[in-house]
Amino acid sequence: MAKQRVLTGITTTGTPHLGNYVGAIRPAIESSRDSNIDAYFFLADYHALIKCGDPAKVQQSTKEIAATWLALGLDTDNTTFYRQSDVPEVTELSWILTCLTAKGLMNRAHAYKAAVQVNEEEGEDPDKGIMMGLFNYPILMAADILMFNGEKIPVGKDQIQHIEMARDIAQKFNHHYKQEVFTLPEAVVGEDAAVLSGLDGRKMSKSYNNTIPLFLPEKKLQKHINKIKTNLLEPGEPKDVTDSTVFEIWQAFANPEQVQYMREQFAQGIAWGQAKKELFGLINEQLSGARERYEALMADGSFIEQELQKGAAKARASARPLMEKVRKAAGIAPIS
Amino acid sequence: MAKQRVLTGITTTGTPHLGNYVGAIRPAIESSRDSNIDAYFFLADYHALIKCGDPAKVQQSTKEIAATWLALGLDTDNTTFYRQSDVPEVTELSWILTCLTAKGLMNRAHAYKAAVQVNEEEGEDPDKGIMMGLFNYPILMAADILMFNGEKIPVGKDQIQHIEMARDIAQKFNHHYKQEVFTLPEAVVGEDAAVLSGLDGRKMSKSYNNTIPLFLPEKKLQKHINKIKTNLLEPGEPKDVTDSTVFEIWQAFANPEQVQYMREQFAQGIAWGQAKKELFGLINEQLSGARERYEALMADGSFIEQELQKGAAKARASARPLMEKVRKAAGIAPIS
Repeated sequence: MAKQRVLTGITTTGTPHLGNYVGAIRPAIESSRDSNIDAYFFLADYHALIKCGDPAKVQQSTKEIAATWLALGLDTDNTTFYRQSDVPEVTELSWILTCLTAKGLMNRAHAYKAAVQVNEEEGEDPDKGIMMGLFNYPILMAADILMFNGEKIPVGKDQIQHIEMARDIAQKFNHHYKQEVFTLPEAVVGEDAAVLSGLDGRKMSKSYNNTIPLFLPEKKLQKHINKIKTNLLEPGEPKDVTDSTVFEIWQAFANPEQVQYMREQFAQGIAWGQAKKELFGLINEQLSGARERYEALMADGSFIEQELQKGAAKARASARPLMEKVRKAAGIAPIS
Repeated sequence: MAKQRVLTGITTTGTPHLGNYVGAIRPAIESSRDSNIDAYFFLADYHALIKCGDPAKVQQSTKEIAATWLALGLDTDNTTFYRQSDVPEVTELSWILTCLTAKGLMNRAHAYKAAVQVNEEEGEDPDKGIMMGLFNYPILMAADILMFNGEKIPVGKDQIQHIEMARDIAQKFNHHYKQEVFTLPEAVVGEDAAVLSGLDGRKMSKSYNNTIPLFLPEKKLQKHINKIKTNLLEPGEPKDVTDSTVFEIWQAFANPEQVQYMREQFAQGIAWGQAKKELFGLINEQLSGARERYEALMADGSFIEQELQKGAAKARASARPLMEKVRKAAGIAPIS
């Protein structure tokens, strides 16, 4: 049976946090060791430019994300781990797809429509402040996917539309040029994609500024965990596990026995301070080895760059022959 | 004094005709021998995809245009003559510029607005049938120009707006990233860019289907010239030079003495058949050497491809260092 190609992009804005780890990174790294899956993971730095005009942040985030995945044991031999901007075929393909994409399709993209709605609610010009990067985003994403004949694309619900657009564009190309050049990608929406709450109890997210970065030094990690919002129940008063960020995070890291243990502690009225101390211990134990590797990778980035170059070579070896097909189909070919 | 960099793109749709020759190709080839000018000429095949979804036509037109320019003596040592799709840096740059371009700017582009107007007049959805290639066209054009720090861009009046947009985008980049990465391009509108009339007396243009292809075989050239629309004046009746396509084309190829000669012939009532015969003789004499070279180049395209590869190497040698600057400015750089 042919391996299934699964493709995941990580936009290089921000520092990986516990929420990213539990919801996306940990399962992805597990899948990287699955020999039935041909996984492509890429640092989506061209997508980062849509959201982030601060070059230092884009550069730092790219380094941090790459270091994180490598420190956590991503198997880069069994997968293809690359930086989007190292594969020039992607923007070439993006342009060719641009010529086959109806503007009407882009008008209907959720992210663009949401931005327009905000402007309209404020009585502004509908396109005020909207950049072409946002408007063209679904086409670049289609190129990311179609370039590697991605079959299964794990996404959140907000991204399903983009995969459908990639599918539409692929069909349009195959039909227009009368060749089955592209595989039609399919969105795979995680059944229970773990979502973690942040310090303030809302979903942990950079935009809420409520995250616990994944590889904080020990003391800082402890401080962050101490800041998790709890209620006013005193030590000795039974606590509700269904309404506690501390318990939720515990559960994301604990094995079944440990979950049972903490459930009992809550029932018996464990003090919040004690619960947080134990939570720190659990997380710290699981992450300290990777944290050490992370710090070494960050201190000398040359290994990261070397791994990304290895990935780029693999990615391009796969992109080039497909791009030749695409070009030829569109009438762009050497003259003879 | 530094050479001035002049950049011209030729969209690879259609076969070069006498109007292209007189209005654009002949002056460009003359300028290619001017040692004060650092001319870049490129076959804009990515632009062709906006207008033309027929791969055979794009491919054929690319070959015909390249063969035409080479047959006419383009100096490819003193200039850079390349195919747009051979320079992947162009689409990379295009994406980075996309992220800095306001959608509002594209909404105002003439070509897009004209297409919307047609839809609106027909009571259709404003974006009906409009593709993203058309909408993004000014950004790709900005990348074409800025990639090579083009200073002077010879254009027709309908293209002035696009050069201004390229200028806007360059300024935005330089300002946003606080570096003078891009030269600001300037449109140069030909003072009397020669426009030739076609067979039916309207401007010679592929879209009117009234052209005389430049390198028609002799007999076909003669037939085409015979089809030029004239009035019903008989031989012996004086004819008006200001209202004659035959005279206009004559003038575009003749030296001053020859112009004077034909003026006199018109006054003396030359027969249309005779005038056309002399016009054929004049054009044929001037083009027959180039036509022979053109036919040889078309019969074996390997020399064309070799010249384009030479041009691509020169173009990329110039594009790469600029692209490094652009990437670094935007935060896309090797990890260290």
